Amino acid sequence: MKNISVAIVGGTGYTAVELIRLLSMHPHVTIKMLTSRGNAGQRVDAHFPSLRGVCELVYSDMTTQALASCDLVFFATPHGIAMQHAQALLDAGTKVIDLAADFRLQNTADFSKWYGMAHTEPALLSSAVYGLSEVNREKIKHSSLVGNPGCYPTTVLLGLQPLLAQASKLGEPTFAPRIIIDAKSGTSGAGRKADASLIVSEAADNFKAYAVAGHRHHAEMVQGLNAQFADDYEVTFVPHLLPMIRGMYSTIYVSLTQAMPSEQVQALYESYYADEYFIDVMPANSLPETRSVRASNKLRMALYADGQNLTILVVQDNLVKGAAGQAVQNMNLMFGFAETAGLTQVPVSP
Amino acid sequence: MKNISVAIVGGTGYTAVELIRLLSMHPHVTIKMLTSRGNAGQRVDAHFPSLRGVCELVYSDMTTQALASCDLVFFATPHGIAMQHAQALLDAGTKVIDLAADFRLQNTADFSKWYGMAHTEPALLSSAVYGLSEVNREKIKHSSLVGNPGCYPTTVLLGLQPLLAQASKLGEPTFAPRIIIDAKSGTSGAGRKADASLIVSEAADNFKAYAVAGHRHHAEMVQGLNAQFADDYEVTFVPHLLPMIRGMYSTIYVSLTQAMPSEQVQALYESYYADEYFIDVMPANSLPETRSVRASNKLRMALYADGQNLTILVVQDNLVKGAAGQAVQNMNLMFGFAETAGLTQVPVSP
Amino acid sequence: MKNISVAIVGGTGYTAVELIRLLSMHPHVTIKMLTSRGNAGQRVDAHFPSLRGVCELVYSDMTTQALASCDLVFFATPHGIAMQHAQALLDAGTKVIDLAADFRLQNTADFSKWYGMAHTEPALLSSAVYGLSEVNREKIKHSSLVGNPGCYPTTVLLGLQPLLAQASKLGEPTFAPRIIIDAKSGTSGAGRKADASLIVSEAADNFKAYAVAGHRHHAEMVQGLNAQFADDYEVTFVPHLLPMIRGMYSTIYVSLTQAMPSEQVQALYESYYADEYFIDVMPANSLPETRSVRASNKLRMALYADGQNLTILVVQDNLVKGAAGQAVQNMNLMFGFAETAGLTQVPVSP
Amino acid sequence: MKNISVAIVGGTGYTAVELIRLLSMHPHVTIKMLTSRGNAGQRVDAHFPSLRGVCELVYSDMTTQALASCDLVFFATPHGIAMQHAQALLDAGTKVIDLAADFRLQNTADFSKWYGMAHTEPALLSSAVYGLSEVNREKIKHSSLVGNPGCYPTTVLLGLQPLLAQASKLGEPTFAPRIIIDAKSGTSGAGRKADASLIVSEAADNFKAYAVAGHRHHAEMVQGLNAQFADDYEVTFVPHLLPMIRGMYSTIYVSLTQAMPSEQVQALYESYYADEYFIDVMPANSLPETRSVRASNKLRMALYADGQNLTILVVQDNLVKGAAGQAVQNMNLMFGFAETAGLTQVPVSP
Repeated sequence: MKNISVAIVGGTGYTAVELIRLLSMHPHVTIKMLTSRGNAGQRVDAHFPSLRGVCELVYSDMTTQALASCDLVFFATPHGIAMQHAQALLDAGTKVIDLAADFRLQNTADFSKWYGMAHTEPALLSSAVYGLSEVNREKIKHSSLVGNPGCYPTTVLLGLQPLLAQASKLGEPTFAPRIIIDAKSGTSGAGRKADASLIVSEAADNFKAYAVAGHRHHAEMVQGLNAQFADDYEVTFVPHLLPMIRGMYSTIYVSLTQAMPSEQVQALYESYYADEYFIDVMPANSLPETRSVRASNKLRMALYADGQNLTILVVQDNLVKGAAGQAVQNMNLMFGFAETAGLTQVPVSP
Repeated sequence: MKNISVAIVGGTGYTAVELIRLLSMHPHVTIKMLTSRGNAGQRVDAHFPSLRGVCELVYSDMTTQALASCDLVFFATPHGIAMQHAQALLDAGTKVIDLAADFRLQNTADFSKWYGMAHTEPALLSSAVYGLSEVNREKIKHSSLVGNPGCYPTTVLLGLQPLLAQASKLGEPTFAPRIIIDAKSGTSGAGRKADASLIVSEAADNFKAYAVAGHRHHAEMVQGLNAQFADDYEVTFVPHLLPMIRGMYSTIYVSLTQAMPSEQVQALYESYYADEYFIDVMPANSLPETRSVRASNKLRMALYADGQNLTILVVQDNLVKGAAGQAVQNMNLMFGFAETAGLTQVPVSP
Repeated sequence: MKNISVAIVGGTGYTAVELIRLLSMHPHVTIKMLTSRGNAGQRVDAHFPSLRGVCELVYSDMTTQALASCDLVFFATPHGIAMQHAQALLDAGTKVIDLAADFRLQNTADFSKWYGMAHTEPALLSSAVYGLSEVNREKIKHSSLVGNPGCYPTTVLLGLQPLLAQASKLGEPTFAPRIIIDAKSGTSGAGRKADASLIVSEAADNFKAYAVAGHRHHAEMVQGLNAQFADDYEVTFVPHLLPMIRGMYSTIYVSLTQAMPSEQVQALYESYYADEYFIDVMPANSLPETRSVRASNKLRMALYADGQNLTILVVQDNLVKGAAGQAVQNMNLMFGFAETAGLTQVPVSP
Repeated sequence: MKNISVAIVGGTGYTAVELIRLLSMHPHVTIKMLTSRGNAGQRVDAHFPSLRGVCELVYSDMTTQALASCDLVFFATPHGIAMQHAQALLDAGTKVIDLAADFRLQNTADFSKWYGMAHTEPALLSSAVYGLSEVNREKIKHSSLVGNPGCYPTTVLLGLQPLLAQASKLGEPTFAPRIIIDAKSGTSGAGRKADASLIVSEAADNFKAYAVAGHRHHAEMVQGLNAQFADDYEVTFVPHLLPMIRGMYSTIYVSLTQAMPSEQVQALYESYYADEYFIDVMPANSLPETRSVRASNKLRMALYADGQNLTILVVQDNLVKGAAGQAVQNMNLMFGFAETAGLTQVPVSP
């Protein structure tokens, strides 16, 4: 198998350090460069002591030319950066995976509304693939530009996918368009930044909802739902901040269009995901825990059906399946590697 | 103001130690005895070093006679104990507050189903008052036997009470009977017990739902809702365990029978609770945090209305307003003390 | 008892919010003003929702004139602020307690070295009293200017005081001058600031030493030791950061000048602190826990003597006895209130 | 490279699940059986959902015969079990690594004192090797019976080894025999057991020392020190419990026999460990953090020398280098695999 060289742009955040962790254990990848405007010339492991003995690289300034010498560039940057460089890289034959939101939303008005900036490359959107690996696998394989999904939408869309696929097959909805998503995330989802509201004294030993009036991932969820089966979705999404670092839990409440025995729902899901290495439909009456996927690319779910009411419980590590891990999974698809290459770490528990 | 003497039966659990903390600061109460079968003869502060210098008592064995020498007995015991002793105490003129479930549910079949034992004193139930202080204040004042509410029902019933009262006033429902309650609790709600699933290595740095298939507080919630406005409530209740000790957060999703501007919902709630010391309806767009009520008897809530969809966010300290604090509040009502006596501690934050 | 009015300068940090919490429950104090340069005109409880219903004040700008209308001013400011205003306030008859370091160190060279600024009021130092309440009680009673001790020195100096007093009485040292202090603090000691190294994702689920090469409290400890019994102290002080908010633990290792039976050490300490409400010498073989003093002004210690080796274990809440609580205790002394007034809250546990 | 088959006896504790995690990623090992008296017949992944999709095994009862069909048996059992089976296994040609204390202490009186039972196989002790990999590498390579070190001794002995080796070379001590070790451990070191003192409500948001009067690892440390350079060591060892799951931090205070410039100490350590993959001597003035080794077999240390005083800061993951990881490292040595095989996971951070 041919090896590839990759670059990571924006190398000082959590998705970057997680990409480095995963790619360092990947059999076919060499990290060639890491860029950071403010830290050029400094060793990466001076910023991340966990990488001492793992990564000898020094941060460099970003130049499109240097990036174009790599087979693939990951953008682990704030929103709005990847779209400035994607076209030039694609022109040079370099593939691009953006872990920010530049290539997630096809609707540029939605992008502008939620991210507070105009989308400067609408033409690129048509060639961009939404990198929900299990759902868009074939498109990702043939894509050069992937918009890696948001963490919350990954749990929600994979949690509803078997029902959406069934709806698509039947040509009629399988659940009512009003959906309630009560989601909880570890603090690492907020990134590595000097924000007083995130310090231990404020955010540990505490629990709260945030962005109740509106969250950026809302449009992405609705887009993803409609992509599988178009309907008038009315999504109530309330994210909460957990007093812990890693882990995401989405409790999804839907109303089935007709009552289904819980065994039938269970069978539908197990069958749909039977061949997916990273998706674990747990046995009936299971109680998923975030720690059961800690530091791994697994996503686990459990189903509780009661008449027409269905509650879907989904867990993932927000930095892995919710970010860097799914990006590596997409890279594997784009370059013809085994989909699990570099991603078979066993969850760390306890 | 006359002082009273009280006893606490089952003095080694968290509700007991919290009762001791609160009652030690109460101007009109003397704790006369604390009972514990297994620890009779041992000093209380040997079990709880936080009480060194606060409580000089020694655990005693429980005898109805000794208890009957007190003005009030708190049962901080497992379910099923209080009902064995309540009649004798009442006969002796001693009032009773049970912090377990013996006197919460009027329907003894529900009690049997959820608590796995027959109710041996159904006759007493008719005189027992459900101790949701703000809702049943007048009844509590004249009662000698109070069933102190469960922690989750307290948040849910107080979170919906203004809408229920409005329904009662109008004679028609204000929200659809299907309600979704996504609740999260600190671990202290599970009590002080040797349970491997609760040790730090298992339950810290982790998040999960539990009792999804059915939780004891379900029947109590439905009873409480119907007590205000009878309807065919269909409550989906999913409790989750937070990796922290104190604090409860309930995210309540209801569908209003007709759309209301958010200002109107806000005004309805603010008006309803205007005179309540312990209930804080936060300003529009607030994000309640569990730490804002830590170690205090306050319950705070915020409201997010969007068309017919209403999301109610409620926080309390599960050991205070959710247990011992509300019990003291009920005691104050029963004995004619100021309702806030001994309960004006400022929340501990950070 | 006459009531007093106080001001808190620098009202947005943790020592300030803790002062507000404690003073709100104090029987003889009214908080008259709270200052904050950046937040003048804003309600205090908008910053600290825990104070909703407790504190109706609005932040004001600081003017010496306004401060001088109060009986006492607490400075909960960064180092270097109190010394700019103390003289004017004292001239106006207003007493001052500085919770920063301006009036802790008598040696201005030490001050300059550790705090990176010149001391502008060396003349005031001679009238300033080091506010270690139990040690300097009589001086504090007659003082108008108190430098409130650092959190670490409070544990160390109170932990060694019985031995120092004994040395002073005997005229010879009771322990060798080389002392090792291995201390651990919750994150609240680092204050409320936007610092990336303090966010949950960095500082929770982690443990580390910091400032090993030198910490500001070193000079304060040595000064405090010498104040009781002058010797050539060689203090090795290694502070560590705990992944929790409140609580300080100092493990102090000394070598006794002659072996003492553990019973004798125990008796010495118990006797010395017999009348101190806030100091708890725990029984032999106790294991102090930080939670046993959470949110209270208590300091507990235990002693392990083995031949000449003595290990002293000390716990306090760094924000209470280590900061705001001791400041209130000093205020009580300065104004002739009961020393425990407003400080009898029972520790919050669990 | 020939593959080997291994068994894990006592498969339900944390060292077992960590062994499974590591061995599942090992290129040359097949886990053939896992035993558990109480859980025979049950799937391993029903107990540890993190292993779903990783380990298909079912717990079996332990029989020496079955174990003897493996190349190697790990005992992840309580103390006293391995010594009952070791001889029979060795006779059958099966190698043994005990993660408990049966083969750590050569002095059976020490064993009896600390572990409360007689040592039934003193004859085996002479052939057992103490599995401190970096120190006893050559002996381990040729051994069939390894006593895997305790977690605390691993940090202490590796933290002092360069000085001990220097002493051995010089024929004179390099530091005074009185050593102070202030150690802190995550809760996973206490194992997976139903113990009320370990539940979140008791042990999270708390910090305390334990076993101050005496800890089992004391004798092991002294034995290990003497094995390198015999002296009259007087070790004061105070372990503390951290409110987090994984991670161990030892702060070691020694007094050098003569003052050494910090550069010289640094150079001594860097030189000594230059070729060790798992030992990281951090640059001068570094502050090791437990998270920098989370879930990895790395042990990092930093040195602070000041005249004769030397403070050594050591971090490891107590379940990996402190237990299962070092056991796998020893296995690699015993079977001629690359020493790092299966142990190159990058630390999980944040």
